Amino acid sequence: MSLPLGFTGARLDRADQLRTNAEALAAAVADPRARCLALDGIDFVPGESGGLRWDPIDPADQRAPMLLGIDEAGVPHFVREAPAGVRIDARSRTVMRLLPLLASEEAALYGGARSLVDWHARHRFCAVCGAPTDLFRGGWGRKCGACGAEHFPRVDPVVIMLAECEGRVLVGRQGGFPPGFFSALAGFVEPGESLEEAVARELWEEAGIRVSDVAYVASQPWPFPSSLMIGCRATAKDTALTLDTTEIEAAMWVDKAEVRAALAGDMGAPFMAPPSLAIARHLLEDWAGL
Amino acid sequence: MSLPLGFTGARLDRADQLRTNAEALAAAVADPRARCLALDGIDFVPGESGGLRWDPIDPADQRAPMLLGIDEAGVPHFVREAPAGVRIDARSRTVMRLLPLLASEEAALYGGARSLVDWHARHRFCAVCGAPTDLFRGGWGRKCGACGAEHFPRVDPVVIMLAECEGRVLVGRQGGFPPGFFSALAGFVEPGESLEEAVARELWEEAGIRVSDVAYVASQPWPFPSSLMIGCRATAKDTALTLDTTEIEAAMWVDKAEVRAALAGDMGAPFMAPPSLAIARHLLEDWAGL
Repeated sequence: MSLPLGFTGARLDRADQLRTNAEALAAAVADPRARCLALDGIDFVPGESGGLRWDPIDPADQRAPMLLGIDEAGVPHFVREAPAGVRIDARSRTVMRLLPLLASEEAALYGGARSLVDWHARHRFCAVCGAPTDLFRGGWGRKCGACGAEHFPRVDPVVIMLAECEGRVLVGRQGGFPPGFFSALAGFVEPGESLEEAVARELWEEAGIRVSDVAYVASQPWPFPSSLMIGCRATAKDTALTLDTTEIEAAMWVDKAEVRAALAGDMGAPFMAPPSLAIARHLLEDWAGL
Repeated sequence: MSLPLGFTGARLDRADQLRTNAEALAAAVADPRARCLALDGIDFVPGESGGLRWDPIDPADQRAPMLLGIDEAGVPHFVREAPAGVRIDARSRTVMRLLPLLASEEAALYGGARSLVDWHARHRFCAVCGAPTDLFRGGWGRKCGACGAEHFPRVDPVVIMLAECEGRVLVGRQGGFPPGFFSALAGFVEPGESLEEAVARELWEEAGIRVSDVAYVASQPWPFPSSLMIGCRATAKDTALTLDTTEIEAAMWVDKAEVRAALAGDMGAPFMAPPSLAIARHLLEDWAGL
C-alpha cells in the first residue's frame, strides 16, 4: 500500500501550550529563525526548489501570525490570515496541479495551514450575535468582542466508503467529475449519528443499498476546505441500485481485476481511479490487496 | 459487550430528499400523524410513560418545523428551534439524570435533535458577513439573506483513546469530574491531521507519552453540544507521564482486574468508571474483554 495517506505526516509539533501563553508566543514570533508560509490568497507559492516557500516574519505585516508549530530544530512556523476581501478560489488549478508534486510532509503542512486560513476568512463575524470577532489562541480560535463567544476552527467529518457485494465494490461519479472518473461514495456525518450509521445512511440515500458490517479502514484530512475523511468498508445485502441522481450521476460494481486495471491506469480499465492524494484511492488499493 | 453505544440506534429515516423538496416537506408537516418533540429550552420533557414526549404539530407556532425523519409507519417527526433568547443550559441536571432512563433509540433521537436545536441557537448570524441567517433545508442548514452563504450543522470530531503499555491502560481525570471518576483521554481533531495523528498528538500534549499502532475501535455521537466521538486504542512506548495540568488533574495506569472492578462498581476499585452512555466505558469494556 502507498503510504502515508495524502495530507498526513506533517512533521511539526503543534505546540498547543504556546497558543495560550502570550509571552512564549511573542518569543516564538521574535525568534530570528521563525518562518511564515508564503501564500497567494490561500494558494501556496512554490519555492525555488519546488517545495513550499517560507519567508522571514515581516514585522510590518499587521495580520496576526498564526502558529502552525515547531519543527525538530525548534524553528517556529507561522502562517497569516488572508488579507480582508481576498477572493478565495476553492480549488485553484495551480494548487491542484502542483499539490501532487509536494513532498507528503509539505502537502500535509500546507493542507492544515490552508484549512486554518480558509476558516478565518469565512468566520470574521460571530455566529451567535453577528458582531466582529478577533483571532486569539495563536490563530486557533476567534473570540467575539461583543458577546464573548469563542469559536474554534471547524473540522467536518465525512464518511467515504466502499460497499462490497459478491466480490465487487461500488464506485460512483458526480456530474462534475472529469470524464470516466469514478470514486468511492461519500457524505458528511450529521449530528446524532455514529460514523457507522452515517455510512449506512449515505449508501441508502445515494445508491439505495442496505449495508451491514461497517468497518473502519483509514482517515485523512482533506483541506477543501476542512474535512476529516473517514474511510470505511461495508457489506451490501444485494447489488440492486437506486441512484439519487441529484448526488450521483452513475455508479457501478467493479471486481478486483477491474480495480487493479483502473489503479494501474490501463487503457482498457472500465474507469479512471482517484488520484494518489485521495483516500478513495487508498480504499481501492486496500480492497484490491495492493 | 453492551450495545448499542450511547446515542446511537435512532430508528428514523432522515429522509434527506424531503429537506430540499418544499412541497413534500409541507405535506409531511400537514400529515395529521406528524409529531413534534416537546422541549424545555433544549432539554427533553418526559412523557407520561417516561420516554420522550411528542406533541401534535401546532400550526400557531411560528418557528419552522425541522425534520428529524420518518419512522417505519411513515409518521414524520419534527423538532422546532429554541425560542429566541432562551438560555441554553449546557448540561442541565434534569437531562443528565433522566437520559440514562431513556430507551437507547429515544436517547439517540433526542441527542440528534438536541444537537440540531443547539446549533441553530448559536448560529443565528452569518459568520462570513455578520447578517442574520434563515433556516432552510427543513432545518438542516441556515442561509444568509445578505451574502448568500450557506451554513450547515456542525459536527466536531473528537478522538477518545486508551493508551496501552505493559498490560495496563491510561485513564485520567479533569478537575471538574466527580470525585474518584476517571475516563479515557480525549481531544478535538484539528484541521490538517488524520484521526491517528490526533490521537498521538493529544496523548503527547496531555500525558507526555509517545504512541504507535493507533487502532480504531468504535464511534458515537455526543450531543454536548455536537461531537462525534471516535474511540481508539494505541500502544505507548513507555509509562512515564508528564501531565498537562491545565487539561488533566491526574492520570494513572490500570490493569484489567482494576478496570473490571471499576466497571463492576466494586467498593475496592481504584477509580469510578464512566457511565454507560459514554464511549469511554465501551472502550474499557472492550479492552477488558467484557
